[in-house]
Amino acid sequence: MRVSLCQMAVGRSKEANISKAVNMIIDAAKRGSKLAVLPECFNCPYGTKYFKEYSEELSVGNPTFDAISKVAKENKIWVIAGSIPEKSDGKLFNSSMIFDSEGNLQHVHRKIHLFRINTDTVKMDEGEVLSAGNEATPVSMGNGIKFGVAICFDIRYPLLAWKYASEGTSFLVYPGAFNMVTGPLHWELTARARAVDNQQFVLMCSPARDTEAEYIAWGHSMIVDPLGNVLATADEKETYVDAELDLSMIEKTRKQIPIMSGVRHDAYSLKWN
Amino acid sequence: MRVSLCQMAVGRSKEANISKAVNMIIDAAKRGSKLAVLPECFNCPYGTKYFKEYSEELSVGNPTFDAISKVAKENKIWVIAGSIPEKSDGKLFNSSMIFDSEGNLQHVHRKIHLFRINTDTVKMDEGEVLSAGNEATPVSMGNGIKFGVAICFDIRYPLLAWKYASEGTSFLVYPGAFNMVTGPLHWELTARARAVDNQQFVLMCSPARDTEAEYIAWGHSMIVDPLGNVLATADEKETYVDAELDLSMIEKTRKQIPIMSGVRHDAYSLKWN
Repeated sequence: MRVSLCQMAVGRSKEANISKAVNMIIDAAKRGSKLAVLPECFNCPYGTKYFKEYSEELSVGNPTFDAISKVAKENKIWVIAGSIPEKSDGKLFNSSMIFDSEGNLQHVHRKIHLFRINTDTVKMDEGEVLSAGNEATPVSMGNGIKFGVAICFDIRYPLLAWKYASEGTSFLVYPGAFNMVTGPLHWELTARARAVDNQQFVLMCSPARDTEAEYIAWGHSMIVDPLGNVLATADEKETYVDAELDLSMIEKTRKQIPIMSGVRHDAYSLKWN
Repeated sequence: MRVSLCQMAVGRSKEANISKAVNMIIDAAKRGSKLAVLPECFNCPYGTKYFKEYSEELSVGNPTFDAISKVAKENKIWVIAGSIPEKSDGKLFNSSMIFDSEGNLQHVHRKIHLFRINTDTVKMDEGEVLSAGNEATPVSMGNGIKFGVAICFDIRYPLLAWKYASEGTSFLVYPGAFNMVTGPLHWELTARARAVDNQQFVLMCSPARDTEAEYIAWGHSMIVDPLGNVLATADEKETYVDAELDLSMIEKTRKQIPIMSGVRHDAYSLKWN
């Protein structure tokens, strides 16, 4: 199954951002991809001061929902719509919409682990304006294929990936926007770690780097295979990262190095409330 | 706190193996180390056909226990005695003895996740002869310092490291013997992943590589800091890997990138039976 990560440049114009996303999804479909992934915060500059202004409800009649649903349907392609600031009941969430190839919203993942950082060069606390989600739910694509979606800082938490794997996912998708501190330190490492721990593919989709932005994204969108090898990656500029996911590799990897069947379900378990 | 990994060559003579371990611990103490780590299976060639013959009970009067207890006491050094095949109630375990600097056995970790592999070049199933342990227990060194010990394939399981971290450990120690397939693929990756996921130091101690052995160890013993940087490592030959662990780095790292305080204890929990 061919997949495309759309490492798009995100600017100040919400309309232009949505239009860019739509065009990149159309191009992904033309190249034969069955699934396109957009980055975290693809309709909005990444920053707490922007989230309210750019937020929308995730339902028909709202511009981001309508545009992505339409392009998914018209191009018969699944779309993991990175994330946008979601407005719901007077709260804001950092949320990813997952549309199937008929344009139906199959799932919303609300970022569970809100991002905080406090270094000399980067400071940010999403919790100042965002509320956190509480749920992990694998999405079924048909033909027995399931995947899990989580957002950026969520990748720091191996128990969330573990939860998805225990539900039978074949790949994990993380729209994310690591920065110039955590990007070089941990972007590839965590992607490869989640892939190897759970013996499945991992897709990480970043915005392109905008050095004029307050928060500068690392880029380097990446697709990792179940052995932890980087199948495809990018530099920091606006581009695609495409790969063919050979899902049979999962079973083969698990037979060779039986991590998954060695889980000691009798000794410990993960409880999701 | 200075620590030493003793990447020792393990041969067919149990007596020579124990003697080598003792000498390497004495040297570690002379260099000022407060803790010495031995590799997995340091008194016995690594292989299911050897485990019974080389096994011992982990108590006074048995040669490995007595030798390591004595050298720890005489040199006032903590010793994580990698692992040996443990005989207990007619069963065999792959077990690590942890001695304090007075030579007292503080803890035994029995490998929880028995190793299996089935590739073209490496085949092994510890479960053919070994029983598995069921418990994780952090060890207190005094001065508020705790650490966790797990063995080789145990590092594949992020929930075990998570359990230790949740008990307040400052470092995780994995005596291990990755091979020529999994070594280049995953040895450094999993070490760095467990360090970054749990924001603490990780110590991995391998036997030196013996290309005449049926099972050829990767070597590359390694000490990783809480940011995932490799502080010290080795090639494949018999040698030491020493490092100074600056434990204040843990708190600093956790303030800068607050992974640990961001755990959603309200949403999920790990239950140890």
